[in-house]
Amino acid sequence: MQFHHHGYVSGDPRVEPAAGVGVNRPDELPDEVDVLIVGSGPAGMIAAAQLAQFPDVVTRLVERRPGRLEIGQADGIQARSVETFQAFGFAERITAEAYRITEMAFWKPDPADPARIHRAARAVDDPTGISEFPHLLVNQARVLDYFAEYAVNSPARVRPDYGYEFTGLQVAEHGDHPVAVTLRRTAGPDEGRERVVHAKYVLGADGARSRVRAAIGCHMAGDQANHAWGVMDVLAVTDFPDIRTKCSIQSEAGNILLIPREGGYLFRMYVDLGEVGADDHGAVRQTTIEQIIARANEIMHPYTLDVRNVAWHSVYEVGHRLTDRFDDVTDVSGGRTPRVFIAGDACHTHSAKAGQGMNVSMQDGWNLAWKLGHVLEGRSPESLLATYSAERQVVAQNLIDFDRTWSTLMATKPEDLADPAELEEFYVRTAEFPAGFMTQYTRSLIVGDAAHQARATGFPIGKRFKSAEVTRVCDGNPVHLGHHAKADGRWRVYVFADAARAGEASAVADLADWLASAPDSPLAATPEELDADAWFDVKIVYQQPHTEVDLGAVPAVFLPRSGPFELIDYEHVYAADPEHDIFAARGLDRGGAVVVVRPDQYVANVLPLTATDELAAFFDGVHRGSAAERAADRV
Amino acid sequence: MQFHHHGYVSGDPRVEPAAGVGVNRPDELPDEVDVLIVGSGPAGMIAAAQLAQFPDVVTRLVERRPGRLEIGQADGIQARSVETFQAFGFAERITAEAYRITEMAFWKPDPADPARIHRAARAVDDPTGISEFPHLLVNQARVLDYFAEYAVNSPARVRPDYGYEFTGLQVAEHGDHPVAVTLRRTAGPDEGRERVVHAKYVLGADGARSRVRAAIGCHMAGDQANHAWGVMDVLAVTDFPDIRTKCSIQSEAGNILLIPREGGYLFRMYVDLGEVGADDHGAVRQTTIEQIIARANEIMHPYTLDVRNVAWHSVYEVGHRLTDRFDDVTDVSGGRTPRVFIAGDACHTHSAKAGQGMNVSMQDGWNLAWKLGHVLEGRSPESLLATYSAERQVVAQNLIDFDRTWSTLMATKPEDLADPAELEEFYVRTAEFPAGFMTQYTRSLIVGDAAHQARATGFPIGKRFKSAEVTRVCDGNPVHLGHHAKADGRWRVYVFADAARAGEASAVADLADWLASAPDSPLAATPEELDADAWFDVKIVYQQPHTEVDLGAVPAVFLPRSGPFELIDYEHVYAADPEHDIFAARGLDRGGAVVVVRPDQYVANVLPLTATDELAAFFDGVHRGSAAERAADRV
Repeated sequence: MQFHHHGYVSGDPRVEPAAGVGVNRPDELPDEVDVLIVGSGPAGMIAAAQLAQFPDVVTRLVERRPGRLEIGQADGIQARSVETFQAFGFAERITAEAYRITEMAFWKPDPADPARIHRAARAVDDPTGISEFPHLLVNQARVLDYFAEYAVNSPARVRPDYGYEFTGLQVAEHGDHPVAVTLRRTAGPDEGRERVVHAKYVLGADGARSRVRAAIGCHMAGDQANHAWGVMDVLAVTDFPDIRTKCSIQSEAGNILLIPREGGYLFRMYVDLGEVGADDHGAVRQTTIEQIIARANEIMHPYTLDVRNVAWHSVYEVGHRLTDRFDDVTDVSGGRTPRVFIAGDACHTHSAKAGQGMNVSMQDGWNLAWKLGHVLEGRSPESLLATYSAERQVVAQNLIDFDRTWSTLMATKPEDLADPAELEEFYVRTAEFPAGFMTQYTRSLIVGDAAHQARATGFPIGKRFKSAEVTRVCDGNPVHLGHHAKADGRWRVYVFADAARAGEASAVADLADWLASAPDSPLAATPEELDADAWFDVKIVYQQPHTEVDLGAVPAVFLPRSGPFELIDYEHVYAADPEHDIFAARGLDRGGAVVVVRPDQYVANVLPLTATDELAAFFDGVHRGSAAERAADRV
Repeated sequence: MQFHHHGYVSGDPRVEPAAGVGVNRPDELPDEVDVLIVGSGPAGMIAAAQLAQFPDVVTRLVERRPGRLEIGQADGIQARSVETFQAFGFAERITAEAYRITEMAFWKPDPADPARIHRAARAVDDPTGISEFPHLLVNQARVLDYFAEYAVNSPARVRPDYGYEFTGLQVAEHGDHPVAVTLRRTAGPDEGRERVVHAKYVLGADGARSRVRAAIGCHMAGDQANHAWGVMDVLAVTDFPDIRTKCSIQSEAGNILLIPREGGYLFRMYVDLGEVGADDHGAVRQTTIEQIIARANEIMHPYTLDVRNVAWHSVYEVGHRLTDRFDDVTDVSGGRTPRVFIAGDACHTHSAKAGQGMNVSMQDGWNLAWKLGHVLEGRSPESLLATYSAERQVVAQNLIDFDRTWSTLMATKPEDLADPAELEEFYVRTAEFPAGFMTQYTRSLIVGDAAHQARATGFPIGKRFKSAEVTRVCDGNPVHLGHHAKADGRWRVYVFADAARAGEASAVADLADWLASAPDSPLAATPEELDADAWFDVKIVYQQPHTEVDLGAVPAVFLPRSGPFELIDYEHVYAADPEHDIFAARGLDRGGAVVVVRPDQYVANVLPLTATDELAAFFDGVHRGSAAERAADRV
C-alpha cells in the first residue's frame, strides 16, 4: 500500500484524497452523467468501484432497492474473485470473515442400505495449487459492501443512488449525452415520480429480468424449461457430520448441494425441486420453507436437520440462457460504437450449483469499466468498447456449457453414471474453470498475437497475469509481483531483465532509454501534468538476488518520481527470489521479456526486450491519436 | 471469525451486538465508573479495548488531547504485538498498511576512506522464524485507531472521552468506588472546569511525566543523565540506497537510526544528539529541524538527503528509568489489594532505539485489563490484581537492561568495539527479546509450577502460547490453533489427546466427562445463564488426521452449544496436520496433555490428562468462592 507521497496521511490510508468530480460531488443524481449504471449487484458495483478511480468521469449507480442488500443471493467466491478483491484492497478482510473451502464431500446412497446416505468420497478443493488465493463462501451483501467502500474511498467518491428504478431508455444518434434514461423513484417522498437522466454510456447490471436488456432489444436464448431449487440459509442443529463441509448429497429421495457459510454456524442448502414444465404456471414457487426443510430431512436420512432459525429462503427457478449480444450494437460491421451495455445476470443465467454467477458478473463489470474510463478520459478510441461484448460473450457461453455439464452430473442418480466416481473426478479435473482462470481472450485491439509467447510461457497471452513471488529490492521484502497491481485503471509493463546487472550496457538499458525518451514510447502518451507513472506502471525484475542489485544504477524509468514533492517511488524494482525464481516458475527467457498487462490483469502482450517497434505499434492502437490530440479531447 | 449464532448478521461481523452497559451507554462521562483509564496511548487503549469485552463493567478512558493522536510518537511493532493485534482482530489490516522489516543494514565508516560511510553488513531480521507474524513499522496513531475500533465494536461500546486532564486522586479506605479522581476540562465550552469522578479502579497510562504516578507516590529510579535524539518523520529525495531499509548508520560525524515507514515514501530518522548533562537546562530541546537535517547530511556523507516535507519532528530526551512499583500498594505484606495502577511510559522510560516502548506498554495494559474484568465480574478474587505489578515490573527491568546494552552498542564507535561485528551479532543473537517473546512469568496464583512441563516442552509455562498449525476437523481447514484465541477475556484449556480415537475409552474421554459434569471442574464456575463456553474456551486436538476423527463420537464438552438457538460450535475440535504435526512441533507427550492458557495468551499450566485434582486446585485459586457466591457478588 503506497501513500504519504502527497504529504502525511494520519488516518486510514485506504481513503484516497478526493479529486476531480469527487471534490464537490452532488448528493442528488444530476441530469447529465458520463456513465449511468443500473443495478447494484456484483457487476454494477465493481464497475462503479473501478470508475471511481477516474477523477474526471461522472459515474452514478442507480438501484431500485431503498438501501444496501441485506440477505440472500450469491455466496460462491472463486479464487479469481479473491485475486480481484486484492486489486480492490479487501482480499485480506473478506477472507478473514468468509468460509474457506478446502475440500468437498460426496454423499451417496449406502450400497449396503440405499435408503441411507454415506460419505462416498472426499475431494481436495485445489489439489494442484491453482492460485495463491483461497476459494471462499460469503454473502454477496458483504462483497457489495466492500466494493461500495472502495468506490466511496476513491478519488471520484462514487456512492450508489438508492431508490431509483429504470423504466426505459432512448439512444440518440448525436449529442454529448446521447442516452436518455427514464427513472422512477421507488422510495422516499418523491416515490413514483419519473425523471430523465442523460448519459454518455449506460450499463445495465439489473439482473436476470433486466429491463435495460429489453430496452436494447437483446433476447435470451437457451433452455425451454427451468430447473427449480429450494434455497435456504439456516441455523440448525444436526447430527450430519459434514455440515461444515461443502457437500453434494445424492440420495434416493433427491439431491442437495450443501454450502457452509461464514461465521461458523450458518449454512445454505440448495434442495433440488426438479425440472419445471411449461405447465407449472408458478406452482413450484409456492413451495414453503416447511416443505423445503421436510425434503432436506428425507434426503439426509438417517441424519436429521433441526432448523432453529431461517435467515433467508427462496425458490430459485432458472434455465441456461445467454443473450445474443452484450451491447446495443446490432450490426457490428456498421461502425457505430456501443452506448448501452449489459452485464452479469442480465446476460447469462444458469444454475447456482457451480458457484459461478457472482464471479463471472464481476469480471463482466471490471472488463467494461476500465474501458469506459479510458475512452471517457480520451486515452483510447471508442472502438475499445466493442471488445467488451466480443470478450465477455465467449466467457458466458463457456460458463453455461460448464454449468450445464456440472448441474446435470449432480442431478444424475449414481446408478445412471457411467462411472460411480464421475462426479468427483469431474470436480477435480476441471478445477481451473470454476476457480475462474480458464478465461483466455483472443486477438484484438488490446490482446496481441502469440508471436513471442515462447519468451514467457507462464504468462499466456489473453489469460490473467498469474502472480509469482519476487523480492522488492529497496527493502528486501518478499512480495507477490501481481499483488501490486491495484484496480487503478493503469496498464502495466513488466520488464523481465536479461542477465546483465543494473547499470551495465544491455537490452534492458536500451529499452529503459527508449521507454523514457522515445516519442513513440507508450509512456509519452501520459499527459505532462500527471505523474510520470499515472498511465503506465512499469516494473523491472532482475535475475540477480536483491542484494546484488545496485539501486543507484537502475535506470530512472524504473524509479519514477511521484507527487508534488517528486519523491522516488522505489516499488518498481524487483529481483528474482533465489528460492522461488520467477524466471523458472513462469518460463521466462533468460534473454529477458516484456509482459504487457491490462488494467483488469489480463496479459495483453509478450515481447522481446528489443521489440520497441512492436510495443509502440501495440499501444498506437490502444491510444487515441497523438498525445496532443488526446489532451485537446479530454473530457 | 464466528458470528450469526444469535441470528443473521448482515453487516460487518466485526461489530458485536451491544450488551450490558453498552446498550445505553451515556455519552457524558458519568460520576461513577468501574474503571477509569487516564491516557489514550498504547497501554490505555488496549486496556479499554479489552475491558470493552466485559459487558457489565463501566470503563471510561479520559485523554487530555481534544481528539485522536495524529502524528509522531512510536512506530516499532514487534511480532508479539502483531500476534496481539490478531487477538484484537486487526493484524491483517495493519500488516497490509505497515512497513515490514525483513532485514537490517549496518553502515559504518569505510576503512578505505573513513570520511565516507559504506554498508558493512546486512542481517536478516528473523532468521530462525521466531513467529508467524511479521515485524512492522507503522505510526502509533493507526495502532490506537484500531484499538479504538475494537473498543467501540465490543459489547460495552467503549469510546475515549477526549479533553479531560487528570489533576489528582484520593483513595478512600472504604466504599464501592473508593478512588476519587479530579479531572479538568482541556477543551470545549467547559474548558478549565474541574470535576470529580469516583472509580473502583484507576489505570494511569499517562506517559513518562505521569501525574497518576506522582499521585500514588511512585518514584522513577535510573540514569542521572538523559540522552537526546533529533527525531524527524520526513519525505525526502536521497541517493542513499538503503533509504527503505532499517539501518544503523555510524559515521565519524555521529549516529543515525533510520526507520523506513509505512506507505513507501516516509521515513523516520533518530539523529543522535549525545548525552545531556545536568547543566543543559533544556538547551538541547532548542535544536531546530534545520540543524537535525544538516547533522543527518553530515553523518550520511557522501550521500545526501534533500528533505522535501517534514511530517513531524521533535527532540527526544530520555534516560533509562523504572518505577519502584506499578500500583498503589506500598506494603505488599499488608493485605490491601491495589486500586490504582500505572502502565507503559508511566512505569518505564528508555531509548527508542530497540523499538520496544509501545510494545511493552501494550502488554502492560493487556495484562492488567483482563484481571480487572475478572475481578469486577466477581469471577476472581481481588488478590489477582497484585500479580500485575509483580509480573510487569520484571519485564520492564529486563527491557531497560536490554535497551541500555543495545543503545550503548549503537552509540559506540566501531573502533572502540571489541569485535567490529559486535553490533550486528548482538542484533541477531538476541532477536527473540525485541520480538517480544522472552517474557516468562513466574509461579503465582495464575502461573502453575513446572512439575509437568515435560508433557509439553514447546509450551513453556509462563511464556506466551506459541501457536502451531492444526486442521479444523469440521471443515478440513488448515488453521493456526492460537489464532482462534481472541481477546475475549476467556481462559483457554487446550486438550492434546492421547493416542485413542474419538469415542474410544481413554484418558481424554474421562477428562471430558469430568470437565462437563464434575462439581469441581473449572467449567462448573460458569454462571448458568451464560453460554457453556462463556468463561472457558475448551479445545481438543486429536493425533489422527482430520479425516479419521468422527465428529459424532467427540465428547460433548468439545462441541459446546452456543447462543439462543443452542447451535453446535464446531470450532473446538482439531486434528494434528500430518505435514505439520503439532505434537512433534511443540514437544507434546503422545500420552496427551492439558495446556491451560490465560486470557492474555500466556501459558498458565501444563498437566497430564488425568490430573483433574491439580486442574481443579489451580482454578480454585483463580476463582472466587463457590459458583453461587460468585453469582451473588457479581457487579
